[in-house]
Amino acid sequence: MATLAARPLPHREAETPTSLVMTFAADRPLQLDSGAAIAPLTVAYQTYGTLNAAKSNAVLVCHALTGDQHVANVHPVTGKPGWWGAMVGPGRPIDTDRFFVICSNVVGGCMGTTGPASVDPASGRAYGLDLPVITIPDMVRAQAMLVDALGIDTLFCVIGGSMGGMQVLQWAAVYPERVFSAVPIATAARHSSQNIAFHEVGRQAVMADPDWRGGRYLDADTRPEKGLGVARMAAHVTYLSDQALHAKFGRRLQDRAAPTFTFDADFQVESYLRYQGRSFVERFDANSYLYMTRAMDYFDLAADHGGRLADAFRGTRTRFCVASFTSDWLFPTSESRAVVHALNAGGASVSFVEIETDKGHDAFLLDVPDLITTSRGFIAAAARARGLDAPAGEPAP
Amino acid sequence: MATLAARPLPHREAETPTSLVMTFAADRPLQLDSGAAIAPLTVAYQTYGTLNAAKSNAVLVCHALTGDQHVANVHPVTGKPGWWGAMVGPGRPIDTDRFFVICSNVVGGCMGTTGPASVDPASGRAYGLDLPVITIPDMVRAQAMLVDALGIDTLFCVIGGSMGGMQVLQWAAVYPERVFSAVPIATAARHSSQNIAFHEVGRQAVMADPDWRGGRYLDADTRPEKGLGVARMAAHVTYLSDQALHAKFGRRLQDRAAPTFTFDADFQVESYLRYQGRSFVERFDANSYLYMTRAMDYFDLAADHGGRLADAFRGTRTRFCVASFTSDWLFPTSESRAVVHALNAGGASVSFVEIETDKGHDAFLLDVPDLITTSRGFIAAAARARGLDAPAGEPAP
Repeated sequence: MATLAARPLPHREAETPTSLVMTFAADRPLQLDSGAAIAPLTVAYQTYGTLNAAKSNAVLVCHALTGDQHVANVHPVTGKPGWWGAMVGPGRPIDTDRFFVICSNVVGGCMGTTGPASVDPASGRAYGLDLPVITIPDMVRAQAMLVDALGIDTLFCVIGGSMGGMQVLQWAAVYPERVFSAVPIATAARHSSQNIAFHEVGRQAVMADPDWRGGRYLDADTRPEKGLGVARMAAHVTYLSDQALHAKFGRRLQDRAAPTFTFDADFQVESYLRYQGRSFVERFDANSYLYMTRAMDYFDLAADHGGRLADAFRGTRTRFCVASFTSDWLFPTSESRAVVHALNAGGASVSFVEIETDKGHDAFLLDVPDLITTSRGFIAAAARARGLDAPAGEPAP
Repeated sequence: MATLAARPLPHREAETPTSLVMTFAADRPLQLDSGAAIAPLTVAYQTYGTLNAAKSNAVLVCHALTGDQHVANVHPVTGKPGWWGAMVGPGRPIDTDRFFVICSNVVGGCMGTTGPASVDPASGRAYGLDLPVITIPDMVRAQAMLVDALGIDTLFCVIGGSMGGMQVLQWAAVYPERVFSAVPIATAARHSSQNIAFHEVGRQAVMADPDWRGGRYLDADTRPEKGLGVARMAAHVTYLSDQALHAKFGRRLQDRAAPTFTFDADFQVESYLRYQGRSFVERFDANSYLYMTRAMDYFDLAADHGGRLADAFRGTRTRFCVASFTSDWLFPTSESRAVVHALNAGGASVSFVEIETDKGHDAFLLDVPDLITTSRGFIAAAARARGLDAPAGEPAP
């Protein structure tokens, strides 16, 4: 039986405001791809806007690897604006004056949903690596439990970038009748060999830190901050483009005219990367990082459908808008194009746009005008098709 | 006064055969770009073939980041063949029946030349980070001391890839009259922001390892193997192409039909990367890794010539052959093209070839037929121009 209640996040209780939290009791376990189950399951989430009487205006936002449910509110840990303010809010493409927006922290995360830092009822201490490995389908299954509990049958839109885009594709593949429109951005239907390699580097960096302690660092009141910082630095380089780094930093030195001939952060790009590593460890759990990267590695939508990606979408009535970025070398346009080909082969309605930008993979998080314009147009058209009232001032079709 | 003598390498004495070693006494210091100096300086090197009476057939091979002087002989530590057997040997493009081939371990290295693991005469213990930071020009200055001591005025050819290619460009820029021909492969005239970023990740991985001990691990008889292993894994991904990884490993699992849903090396690419990390730490010194990456970061040939790369080569009579690889995203063709443009602007004689391959940056080390053919043709033509006897069977021009 699901219970809907506002409760403090299970960690950092003193410092942070509450998220909405739903707990599914032990008789409602989350069944996992690995064969294991999680019970009880807690899902922390945020909502924005109002669900209409027909419950037809709900938008599910799916967050990326290191994201969370704080899409469009000040983040309780960092104090920074929500991660997708460019896309979600009053008058934004996902207009919170018009839509009921839901975003939940994924299973395995560290912002309130059950993850490796949560208490394992079997032991009374943090799960650590005793939490079963999580997959993208597991994340989506947990989201569906939340959506069910909120009484919503069909989502007007499911949208997200990167790992969030993988969840969008998974939603559309397994619950086609529950997804009116879908917007997978800067993503892929399977994680590439190169991307698995980069993830493995990050995991090894975490595990190499003696403070990781085989995943049991919370018991010892330590945290593998150095290892997680290195993992973040390595990943962060892959989120940017060579052009963006060149434009932003080039070979410029940090606060000096001549090199120091030391191993200090002489170059601005070094200083920037070190800052990225330091600030990340203040908000993210190292074991969650392992679980999130592993979930992406295992994602292979075609393999789950007999090896043919088109079969994942055959006969679907969902409307798709697929977007990629020219300078994204982590999830290059070729990956999005493979999704579009499969959608076409499956007979889906699909728009596809490759957006010109030098911002690399990170572009999906940024206020890139072509992404905003594309999303606004697609979502507005889908809303008309769904019979949702246009906001005041927008002409009827 | 230089003394030429075969001496054991300063570490692993019991396990490895000797390299040639030249020691420059304290009155012949190596002056460094940082303003510091190294004295005494030891340079470990290998030679192949015979220097002719005119001393006009010497080829200097410059090694890359983790390479060493063992170009074409079995490596004394790993027992594997030399790193450039495809290019150097009897009947190879750099034909050891015809040329006198020299390769020295660079300053800051760990195979016998003075580096951070060498004994600091000031303290009687290993230099560690007390060794001054080394630059590419410093490496070339030390090589010039060796070449002087061998009584060689003009090198017939200077050749190398990656960091070796940087040394080639530096040689051609500062000693144009001593370089008859130059072959910089898969390299750049300055290290890019993205490449500095990747190097900084590797350095932070090493320094995050508590066994690094501020660089003083040899005093404590420890080695930061985990940190260095992570650094190598991160770097190794950048040496390969997405296509090569896809072709070689794809998403194939390691010795099993189904995923384990664990953090073991489920995917073949993970197992491969872990092996790369493990085997690297058996042959390479962690502090040397810091020095080598730093030297590359600092390299900026244009900056050393008033900001105009063409001025580094103005009026040169050296013949150049510049080569890049289509799938090399670490040193992309655009970097080689910038060198070629500068050479053209400087009035140099230059051939340029972009070689089609999916092998990524690593291609310069591999038996890539187009690289072998191009090198063979360029070197043979240069040898004719230099008036070197053609080998039996090759027609005179």
